[in-house]
Amino acid sequence: MDEKTFDERLKAAQEHAESIVRSFLPKEEGYQKTGLSAMNYSVLAGGKRLRPVLLYVTATMYGAKPALYEPFMAALEMIHTYSLVHDDLPALDNDSYRRGRKSTWAVYGDDQAVVAGDALLNFAYETALTAFSCAETKEETDRVVKALQLLASNAGIYGMVGGQVADLESDKHQELVDEKLLTFIQEKKTACLIDSGFVIGAILGGAPKEDIQALHQAARNVGLAFQVQDDILDVTGDAAVLGKSIGKDAAEGKATYVSLHGLDAAKKEVQDLTDEAADLLSHLSVDGSFLAQLAASLVGREK
Amino acid sequence: MDEKTFDERLKAAQEHAESIVRSFLPKEEGYQKTGLSAMNYSVLAGGKRLRPVLLYVTATMYGAKPALYEPFMAALEMIHTYSLVHDDLPALDNDSYRRGRKSTWAVYGDDQAVVAGDALLNFAYETALTAFSCAETKEETDRVVKALQLLASNAGIYGMVGGQVADLESDKHQELVDEKLLTFIQEKKTACLIDSGFVIGAILGGAPKEDIQALHQAARNVGLAFQVQDDILDVTGDAAVLGKSIGKDAAEGKATYVSLHGLDAAKKEVQDLTDEAADLLSHLSVDGSFLAQLAASLVGREK
Repeated sequence: MDEKTFDERLKAAQEHAESIVRSFLPKEEGYQKTGLSAMNYSVLAGGKRLRPVLLYVTATMYGAKPALYEPFMAALEMIHTYSLVHDDLPALDNDSYRRGRKSTWAVYGDDQAVVAGDALLNFAYETALTAFSCAETKEETDRVVKALQLLASNAGIYGMVGGQVADLESDKHQELVDEKLLTFIQEKKTACLIDSGFVIGAILGGAPKEDIQALHQAARNVGLAFQVQDDILDVTGDAAVLGKSIGKDAAEGKATYVSLHGLDAAKKEVQDLTDEAADLLSHLSVDGSFLAQLAASLVGREK
Repeated sequence: MDEKTFDERLKAAQEHAESIVRSFLPKEEGYQKTGLSAMNYSVLAGGKRLRPVLLYVTATMYGAKPALYEPFMAALEMIHTYSLVHDDLPALDNDSYRRGRKSTWAVYGDDQAVVAGDALLNFAYETALTAFSCAETKEETDRVVKALQLLASNAGIYGMVGGQVADLESDKHQELVDEKLLTFIQEKKTACLIDSGFVIGAILGGAPKEDIQALHQAARNVGLAFQVQDDILDVTGDAAVLGKSIGKDAAEGKATYVSLHGLDAAKKEVQDLTDEAADLLSHLSVDGSFLAQLAASLVGREK
């Protein structure tokens, strides 16, 4: 597959993910309209739809039914989005901008932003639960249950939220941040939702156990690489391209892979993690080459 | 059934609910320990465990399997608790005390309280999802799916969170609050989780459609009565007994049933709603007398 074909495929997958995510958004009406608007504003702030794209790609690799995996694509993006809405709050990161637009609290107030985040997280489950009505066999129902359980565990206190908790805690005690804690934070905060993207589609498509295991491992690598790349961009990036402030980590004296190991080691780490992921994906029972290219493309990203 | 027997049964149900809720709480360990502590602190702040008690009582009425309904008892209390944690935040109600103890943000900081609330909401789903592993037949699996869907819709933007959104919005435009909007807020904010308490146990026990319908209607009445009673107590209550500030609504010029209709009309409304609920519960296919007494006891409550 040549470079152009990969770009075209990626663009098509992103457009498809975008339309699926939009199709599950609620109508802005009724007494709770402000909350519904805040939810949609947050989700429609854009982004690369990386997580639903990954879910779509793996679901397709294993021939999962669209009616089963599409609700999960939307649910996963809602979970990712709610975490950004709450992260941006004055009580947390106090970021007024996100992806070049005002963050949700800056538009709707921090009270509505707290509640809109809650609404999005809950709506993610409402959305994912609709998949049950499209499960036609006991096997499909069982797969939806497993997919839901993974979605939930990757999002919660033993997943993404666990990483956020440790991250907030470490901000107050930078002197205690060592590589083990940093890896924990990055694995939980970033790799867990990437893991949902890598594995939920495979579960819904009935992938063999060995493939599921390899996808978990590859997701961990890609998630860590993605986070280290984020740290690199915070040092080397262009604010206009990124659509967010840069140099923030350093200004706050925040421990990152870059601050602990330096820029060159960080770049090498991203490469090593991605290479290992590519190797894992090359041994799946199905063709994982597009997923591997997608993973690799994260290394070269500028935003 | 005499009064003493009712009190004994209620006490036993509350103690049972307390132990079930506790049994599903996470261990406070690992890098995310602060978040786990904040979650448990919030849940262990006490309260009457009204919602899991209701769920337990209706589940028992219909002979549901404990392994199926116990996770839902805990999940429902977690959802109720997360909503209090977020409601108390400085960005929302700015309440430093809850049930006579410091509220979660006052102990853990408002950053951790935002995230602990998220963690609790997510953990509610993680917990409820464990019920699937105890479903032994297709019918039981289908009931768990329906129970999850009701849990989620009652908690979300078309349920409790929808009421919160409208409530926050109405705080800024008190002049626009009429009875219709007030009923919407109270129905969503309070009655929806009561509804989960009334109906999830019945779903898990395979209750007939007519009973489910009557339970929904009774729950709406009890939820509204409960909220109007809350408004009454905000005027007439004793802060020491309530364990929270009183007179707050009036001080903030907040529209309530009492401010719109007066104290006497509010007391009559509570009685009418409860009588109608009792009537509905007296026509179920099973003995709903304890549930009816429980509903009635909410009228006489002082806290």
